[in-house]
Amino acid sequence: MIGAADLAARLADLQPIGLGPAGTTRLAWTREDAAARAWFERQAAAVGLRAERDPVGNLWAVPDGDGPWWGVGSHLDSVRSGGRHDGALGVAAAFEVAARAAVPLAVISFADEEGARFNTPTLGSRALVGRLDADDALARVDDDGVTMAAALAAAGVDPAGLSGAPERLALLRGFVELHIDQTRDLERAGVPAGVVAALASRMRVEAELTGRADHAGTTRRADRRDALAAAARLVVRADELAATDPGFVVTATRLLVEPGALTTIPSHVALWLDARAPAPETVERWRAALDGFAAQLARSTGVAIELRTAAQSAGVAFDAGIRARLAAACADLGSATDELVCFAGHDAGVLAERVPAGMLFVRNPTGVSHAPEEEVALEDAAVAAEAMLRALEELAR
Amino acid sequence: MIGAADLAARLADLQPIGLGPAGTTRLAWTREDAAARAWFERQAAAVGLRAERDPVGNLWAVPDGDGPWWGVGSHLDSVRSGGRHDGALGVAAAFEVAARAAVPLAVISFADEEGARFNTPTLGSRALVGRLDADDALARVDDDGVTMAAALAAAGVDPAGLSGAPERLALLRGFVELHIDQTRDLERAGVPAGVVAALASRMRVEAELTGRADHAGTTRRADRRDALAAAARLVVRADELAATDPGFVVTATRLLVEPGALTTIPSHVALWLDARAPAPETVERWRAALDGFAAQLARSTGVAIELRTAAQSAGVAFDAGIRARLAAACADLGSATDELVCFAGHDAGVLAERVPAGMLFVRNPTGVSHAPEEEVALEDAAVAAEAMLRALEELAR
Repeated sequence: MIGAADLAARLADLQPIGLGPAGTTRLAWTREDAAARAWFERQAAAVGLRAERDPVGNLWAVPDGDGPWWGVGSHLDSVRSGGRHDGALGVAAAFEVAARAAVPLAVISFADEEGARFNTPTLGSRALVGRLDADDALARVDDDGVTMAAALAAAGVDPAGLSGAPERLALLRGFVELHIDQTRDLERAGVPAGVVAALASRMRVEAELTGRADHAGTTRRADRRDALAAAARLVVRADELAATDPGFVVTATRLLVEPGALTTIPSHVALWLDARAPAPETVERWRAALDGFAAQLARSTGVAIELRTAAQSAGVAFDAGIRARLAAACADLGSATDELVCFAGHDAGVLAERVPAGMLFVRNPTGVSHAPEEEVALEDAAVAAEAMLRALEELAR
Repeated sequence: MIGAADLAARLADLQPIGLGPAGTTRLAWTREDAAARAWFERQAAAVGLRAERDPVGNLWAVPDGDGPWWGVGSHLDSVRSGGRHDGALGVAAAFEVAARAAVPLAVISFADEEGARFNTPTLGSRALVGRLDADDALARVDDDGVTMAAALAAAGVDPAGLSGAPERLALLRGFVELHIDQTRDLERAGVPAGVVAALASRMRVEAELTGRADHAGTTRRADRRDALAAAARLVVRADELAATDPGFVVTATRLLVEPGALTTIPSHVALWLDARAPAPETVERWRAALDGFAAQLARSTGVAIELRTAAQSAGVAFDAGIRARLAAACADLGSATDELVCFAGHDAGVLAERVPAGMLFVRNPTGVSHAPEEEVALEDAAVAAEAMLRALEELAR
């Protein structure tokens, strides 16, 4: 049985990398990232696997022979001031599982999963499956004015490789990822681990509201075309339209007002809305209702309102066979619970488009992620790792 | 009778100064401002008055003798890309009135009324009555990094004089200002001119909302403390609380969101609200209701909400005797209408704290101000100027 001490031993040299008083910061292609990659290579050697870097910068620890193998892993980068276990726990557990498995497994650490430096989440997995706009990604600039192309080159990765490495996919029979729960769902269920059925459907909407800049004092109510007054109503409505469904979350994440002068009616607002629900129809219905409300609001306020879909994903259902085996293993270990729907993106979700994939979550009592308040008991993580080991041995048979 | 041609002749050399395709730009202490001041000196000479600059930078055209006199005037500076008549019309009309009056009158052009360059509205009148924080004003910096102290010195004004010139006030028996209407009130009333009873009561509220930055996807509704979702409700409520009273306007003018990342729940919002109503009690009642709503909103959302009064004015009632004489003169000229309440600040409102003061508005068919769409027929302005002439001759008797 995998125990907490096994995982603690694997994490011991990894967790100090990038750890400061405000949390863990290991952005892609930085010195901290390089230190974490060196840890990966040492772990690979320790469990008798060969460390390789694929053309898009992902790390692989592969067995002897030609494959294909089942893959297991997660990512080693973090957001700014993130938690210690997000990603890292999944890679450490993967090495423990690979060390113990009676079948050959490949451990993978995907590059730049958080995308925090260049706003390119799941970069490595998207590049691997050939679903990345490499030119767009390479031209992006971090807060210090460094392009991704320059950052990759400095880290020893040929930027030309980013356009894809689909031949690597043939090495994988499937992929399983262990990750911290980013909600309190497992805490509420009172179990250490749970199987993820699907990644939620997502839509990002950009709204542009154009009114007229008039004097905030002398312009009578009837003569106003106030872009912010309209935007506030749109934000409230977007939220209310989702409120009846507890599994549906809508967030106004960003809002920019012009001119922002203290005695001027706002003439322009740019607004971003993020909507996520288990079923794509839920998001589509919400969007249709929001479009209707916006049209009515535009008529009643004289503010022109344009809504655009900036990004959309129908969601991903994980492989039924993997889910069944993970669930059975969890149940055997006393961690039976309903399947989860995950509202964030993950490398396993990207891979699921091309190979059988699955995910297992570990209880996080605070439900916080991307912040040092993230919490995991390694006893819980050991249960998840053991379940993953048992499921993979079945799957690889 | 003062006619449109008389005003057109006085404005002929003034209106081209700072006029471009986007409107009129004559910011305080600039080359354009200096050209307008030279126009003022020529006008003074033409009507037999002596041009003087007081220690705070206001221009006076005074009769022979020691005074006190009735004063009449407005301002020559503008906002960026403003209208042609805002301020300028009042000074031009003042010279026409002074030229014709059977009593000695002083014409005044107040410095930096718009305050557009350093965000210091009614600077000259506030300095004159000793109600300006001169140190604060002198340290302010324009968009080019020039301090007001440097700008004043470059314009030949000793910055030390800005702390006040209350002895100048003894030269004034009272003050009357003619100005364009900044609403469509007179257009709706169908009259060329109208008397301003009062400047509205004003309150500027700064709101600070502090929630928590969580993942926009994985954070369940019940676990959220979304500062922007709360701020949107506060904006809508602040507006709704005023909507029942057509004379009451509330504007959310500026709103800043942190962190503004596209997948993060906003943790912090700073919001500015501008409220104006004829009676101070209206604004006070609104504020009390808003405080109550904010407290309830904070409880229901887990977002800390702090409201602060950043600026407040109880409003100004103009002198009853002046109003009565202006109203009688307007009525004699076929322009009888209800008195107006003005929702912007004016030099006459500042002077009203210390000397009898009054204002007369001229019809503005568009109701637009601070933009080139501002509109005035000089026939209308001539009616107002004639009414002002008659009222001042009565007052000065």
